Amino acid sequence: MTRILGIDPGSQRTGVGIIDADPKGQMTAVFQTTLHLLDNETFHLRLKQIFDDLVAIIRDYHPDEVAIERVFMARNADSALKLGQARGAAICAVVHAGLALTEYAPKEIKQAVVGGGAADKTQIQHMVGILLNLREKLQADAADALAIAITHAHTRATVSRIGIPRSAWRRR
Amino acid sequence: MTRILGIDPGSQRTGVGIIDADPKGQMTAVFQTTLHLLDNETFHLRLKQIFDDLVAIIRDYHPDEVAIERVFMARNADSALKLGQARGAAICAVVHAGLALTEYAPKEIKQAVVGGGAADKTQIQHMVGILLNLREKLQADAADALAIAITHAHTRATVSRIGIPRSAWRRR
Repeated sequence: MTRILGIDPGSQRTGVGIIDADPKGQMTAVFQTTLHLLDNETFHLRLKQIFDDLVAIIRDYHPDEVAIERVFMARNADSALKLGQARGAAICAVVHAGLALTEYAPKEIKQAVVGGGAADKTQIQHMVGILLNLREKLQADAADALAIAITHAHTRATVSRIGIPRSAWRRR
Repeated sequence: MTRILGIDPGSQRTGVGIIDADPKGQMTAVFQTTLHLLDNETFHLRLKQIFDDLVAIIRDYHPDEVAIERVFMARNADSALKLGQARGAAICAVVHAGLALTEYAPKEIKQAVVGGGAADKTQIQHMVGILLNLREKLQADAADALAIAITHAHTRATVSRIGIPRSAWRRR
């Protein structure tokens, strides 16, 4: 059984999702939340919130591996800078805990969860709920974080079946 | 005596400079370095390097306050994302240590160090050397980090002379 933490970092909201995946690829939801970053806080206090909250979640849930969405582009330089800072804070919380981190492209995540590269947010929320057998409607960022964790579980299962040595996994 | 850590974060190199400033505004250089982030490392290992190195420097030198350059814009969304991540990692190291962080605009830093907003890198290197009475030629990013620390020392001295309560200082 491997416990996987998925993170979908953003400067307004950061999605967090944890699943357990067994060697056969069977998955169970463990925890999900959305960190709503306070608007009236100064920006570096938002980064502190992301860092501190993720450090606490890692301490409480002991994930074995962590997956995060790779970002290709942002709308503009200003939003890219803010997103980059949020992403930097999330990555620091992971490396601070000494955990392995794998990045997945948005296309890979959509492929793993809904079987195609053109899925919208609603489809992802829906499919994550079905795959993890959840009854309540998921918040969009928490669903994305769980989707990232599911992608990692699929990739692990595939890699495991076809016997690629772990050292050859793509890590960026 | 106040010990000030200045940080100039970048995705290739991060400048670090520490000065001691007495209540009269007299300044002494304590430490400066440039973290050269390894090109062949994966990007999140670069963030780990920034975070870990800054945590170690803070532990070793015990700064009282920290200053960082505020970023307005970057060349493009891709470089903004990378710069943002580096900045996020640096800010996390500071907030992890529970230290107060003040941001300064590039214009304020140039004003404080060379007396004008249009100074180039060479002038900053030169003036930082003079202000801190350093003989060796400074590396550009380390000089920028010391310039940020000097800006904070000046601002503190001014604030102190005109008696603005600390709580009213600009913090972002």
